[in-house]
Amino acid sequence: MNTKNSTVSVFALGGINEIGKNMYVIESYDDIVIIDCGGKFPDESLPGVDLIIPDITYLKENEERIRGLIVTHGHEDHIGGIPYFLKQLNVPVYATNLTLGLIEIKLKEHGILRDSKLFMIDEDNVLRLGTIRTTFFRTSHSIPDCLGIAFQTPLGTIVHTGDFKFDWTPVDKQAADIHRMAAIGQEGVLLLLSESTNAERPGSSPSERLIEEHLDETFRKATRKIFITTFASNVHRVQQIVDTCIRNNRKILLLGRSMVNVVRVATQRGYLKIPEGMLLEESEVPSMSPEEVAILCTGGQGEPMAALSRLASSRFRKLEVLPEDTVIFSSSPIPGNETNVTRVVDNLLRLGANVIYGSGSATGMHVSGHAYQEELKLMLTLMKPKYFIPIHGEYRMLHIHRELAQSIGVKRSNIFLLNNGDVVDIINENEVIQTRSIEAGDVFVDGSGIGDVGEIILRDRRVLAGDGMIVIVVSLQKGLKKIWNGPDTLTRGFVYGPDSEELINSINQNVRTTVEKWDNNKNQRTLKKNIKNSVENLIYKRTKKKPMILPIIIEI
Amino acid sequence: MNTKNSTVSVFALGGINEIGKNMYVIESYDDIVIIDCGGKFPDESLPGVDLIIPDITYLKENEERIRGLIVTHGHEDHIGGIPYFLKQLNVPVYATNLTLGLIEIKLKEHGILRDSKLFMIDEDNVLRLGTIRTTFFRTSHSIPDCLGIAFQTPLGTIVHTGDFKFDWTPVDKQAADIHRMAAIGQEGVLLLLSESTNAERPGSSPSERLIEEHLDETFRKATRKIFITTFASNVHRVQQIVDTCIRNNRKILLLGRSMVNVVRVATQRGYLKIPEGMLLEESEVPSMSPEEVAILCTGGQGEPMAALSRLASSRFRKLEVLPEDTVIFSSSPIPGNETNVTRVVDNLLRLGANVIYGSGSATGMHVSGHAYQEELKLMLTLMKPKYFIPIHGEYRMLHIHRELAQSIGVKRSNIFLLNNGDVVDIINENEVIQTRSIEAGDVFVDGSGIGDVGEIILRDRRVLAGDGMIVIVVSLQKGLKKIWNGPDTLTRGFVYGPDSEELINSINQNVRTTVEKWDNNKNQRTLKKNIKNSVENLIYKRTKKKPMILPIIIEI
Repeated sequence: MNTKNSTVSVFALGGINEIGKNMYVIESYDDIVIIDCGGKFPDESLPGVDLIIPDITYLKENEERIRGLIVTHGHEDHIGGIPYFLKQLNVPVYATNLTLGLIEIKLKEHGILRDSKLFMIDEDNVLRLGTIRTTFFRTSHSIPDCLGIAFQTPLGTIVHTGDFKFDWTPVDKQAADIHRMAAIGQEGVLLLLSESTNAERPGSSPSERLIEEHLDETFRKATRKIFITTFASNVHRVQQIVDTCIRNNRKILLLGRSMVNVVRVATQRGYLKIPEGMLLEESEVPSMSPEEVAILCTGGQGEPMAALSRLASSRFRKLEVLPEDTVIFSSSPIPGNETNVTRVVDNLLRLGANVIYGSGSATGMHVSGHAYQEELKLMLTLMKPKYFIPIHGEYRMLHIHRELAQSIGVKRSNIFLLNNGDVVDIINENEVIQTRSIEAGDVFVDGSGIGDVGEIILRDRRVLAGDGMIVIVVSLQKGLKKIWNGPDTLTRGFVYGPDSEELINSINQNVRTTVEKWDNNKNQRTLKKNIKNSVENLIYKRTKKKPMILPIIIEI
Repeated sequence: MNTKNSTVSVFALGGINEIGKNMYVIESYDDIVIIDCGGKFPDESLPGVDLIIPDITYLKENEERIRGLIVTHGHEDHIGGIPYFLKQLNVPVYATNLTLGLIEIKLKEHGILRDSKLFMIDEDNVLRLGTIRTTFFRTSHSIPDCLGIAFQTPLGTIVHTGDFKFDWTPVDKQAADIHRMAAIGQEGVLLLLSESTNAERPGSSPSERLIEEHLDETFRKATRKIFITTFASNVHRVQQIVDTCIRNNRKILLLGRSMVNVVRVATQRGYLKIPEGMLLEESEVPSMSPEEVAILCTGGQGEPMAALSRLASSRFRKLEVLPEDTVIFSSSPIPGNETNVTRVVDNLLRLGANVIYGSGSATGMHVSGHAYQEELKLMLTLMKPKYFIPIHGEYRMLHIHRELAQSIGVKRSNIFLLNNGDVVDIINENEVIQTRSIEAGDVFVDGSGIGDVGEIILRDRRVLAGDGMIVIVVSLQKGLKKIWNGPDTLTRGFVYGPDSEELINSINQNVRTTVEKWDNNKNQRTLKKNIKNSVENLIYKRTKKKPMILPIIIEI
């Protein structure tokens, strides 16, 4: 364990050079404060992996110094790792009302809600976390109740923006608290950590308020059922959809577990206002006139198991998408999801629906919750940091964010483009350096196991996925080269049995020859290796495939 | 076999409701003519599959009636299936000079070039294919030497557009032959098949010529090496890059097998003009000044094994991307490739390069080769078809193309939105109907095997990829329930051995109990099933995973 007396350090355990699994750490003298603990969804290079969470080895080694986990807002990439984290380190968690509500759903699913130490905060709280005085400022984003954080350490103030945009006409009338941001900047910010998601986009993001008129226009034109999908956590969007339904005399059916969950939590906690009698049960829909119904559902990313995908491929219980129904995507495809989304769109069009889809900003049905370039420059200008770390983005976003910071006057040598685990040490306000790193990386959640899937397992899965496998069983008489039984060759995912009889015979013949050639003074491992190599060559020559080959030798 | 006396039929064996594996068939009385034979690249739902080609069962059953295969142009989605097709049906192939050159490369790789019957045509040829008189018209596209086709059948003229855009200032000065198209339309078109790739895009596509000034500007600013990537087959683009290099005093190194191949073929056949001494060998580059070098390479789609990806991750032989080098993506990511492309961009930025990337039309470094909505309407207007089949596109593209056709006056009931295999029968010019279908679908090429990978194999591969596999070997004494040897449990892609000793022990104990409970009058299959079910339950309860379980029983 490394005890530091008079240094303040900052590093990320996730969120840098990636979108997802955000986790940042501030160490002031002997006090550790953690910001967010997100999850990330795997791509196809990680077959079978369910979720990626940060590696918290360093935190486990320094458990007694952790003063708490502060959560900036309730999105998956900021809260998705919390259950796995708390099971290992049951530290106090600080978050706003709605954020806590969303965290609690997760903790309940994992059966650890009762044992967790959750504390509700708002932007007016001041937390004393050892040597760190922590204050907050409200930001605008695509979920309510978001915080930015100012950490006053003995060596200066460090600001973490959380996720933000500037929206001067917000739906909940609670604009980002620019006055408090200005005051924090005026008092002096030594180091700023600011999110970079939309650093590639010039200009400013449109206001969430713009959606309303587009929704209204589409609702007015629709003559039959309306299906509309958005991120469940986008409570402001859900409120706008509810309000549009009220104005247009439609009642709402909620579909999809996360939609139902988030609406319940957001309503209970006062973030969403749905008049009595507005919500329908599924059983009520058939008896209603189609122009009186709107269905608000999950599946805007084309997730195969979500409500909208199942509706689109007619795999949904009693509800159907019918000709002349309207389907609105109030969302944009996240990179990587485009083909899934267009597949759903195709299926909906086949059912005869009028589908409004495409890049959300083009259809007027979606705006981003992340600051564009001019907004990032506004934040940099408000905070006037001496040092800057762009966070929450892939490399090119951080790269561009660095250029934006330079453009408003931050010295290039005072900007740190980090990797997860790279530590920025504040020695004093004139000496801020990055020279060391701590352990950081991806931990895979697979089934109920955490971290038990490593590179070897994944490599095997990729081989198995590519060309399948072949198991060859040979029983030998103990101590002899004589085959007692077999070889028996069995394949899965390789070639279909009946089509490949001749190939299997050749493999068996090849194994017999290999056993005969084997020097049986050598051990079994040599024989296995010989069989593997010889069969591999045979198969590649015949089929150009490279299945996994598993020889099994039984001595009798 | 079905002999039709006086009907003309049209259907697709690929290319409808998909982008890829284009193959269309026209049957006039007893004569079959095939248009294109493309391949399609699989997505992650088809693990291990190398290429998808059309199912040609129907053509094999009607071999003696096939008069030839006409190829509209040399893109993979129009020629990728040809080698596999010709191995089964060695019919005459008709294509233009450059298209033939690209086909020949493939046939050579497959060792069937000598046996193939290739015929060079141009737009002035007239082919008599039985009852079908075939004429051609030149179109503009992102590869030179493209044809549209007019088939004069006894019942009327059928036009197939091939892939096209309208470019009034083409790089090779050979504009699409709008006069001939107008003449064909004037003579009367009964049925039009027109491509739909960009049916979602309003307006008109920009001219290829626009790239030049953007290239020039970037070349003028660059102070060190320039790397530029584009589709190898985009010969006009390559010509513009070559010309820009000449104007800016840079010599060119070609990197990537397909780039070298296409440049060779296109130069030999006169489609590309590269002055003597312009091309560099890799060994010459180190001795040259960086501002004298441009590297034209493959990899604009982020393909992990292509030249640019390897350069970006410093896995390339002697050549390096260095700080201040410029990298230009003269291409747009194809849907599904975005994450691969941005990964390469991130790596290039990390090396300090100035990278010009993003949606090609935004950077001015790429234009599409497919007609936008106004161009599609122009083609429809020129041809004035009585009946219309939108082809070459996913469902929503065909859907929009139908609306475009309606907007210029084609009757909705005269427009056919088909599936591959759906047959449109022309009885006479007033009776054109779709009531029947023939066999059509995806055939998977995997290694050297064609069609030997079916749904069972793919399902197994998906299970193997998801949670790996477990092989359990038990030897029993013949006729008894007594275990002679084992159980031995072996896993791959499941959990890492050392971490899971306790689980493996439980599995083995579970198997022993299952063997004891087994009624050994029943056959081995029952025991295998019992072991599988019992172990499956145990594992799911403990790990929430569902690996493939393979019990192997050996009787001794």
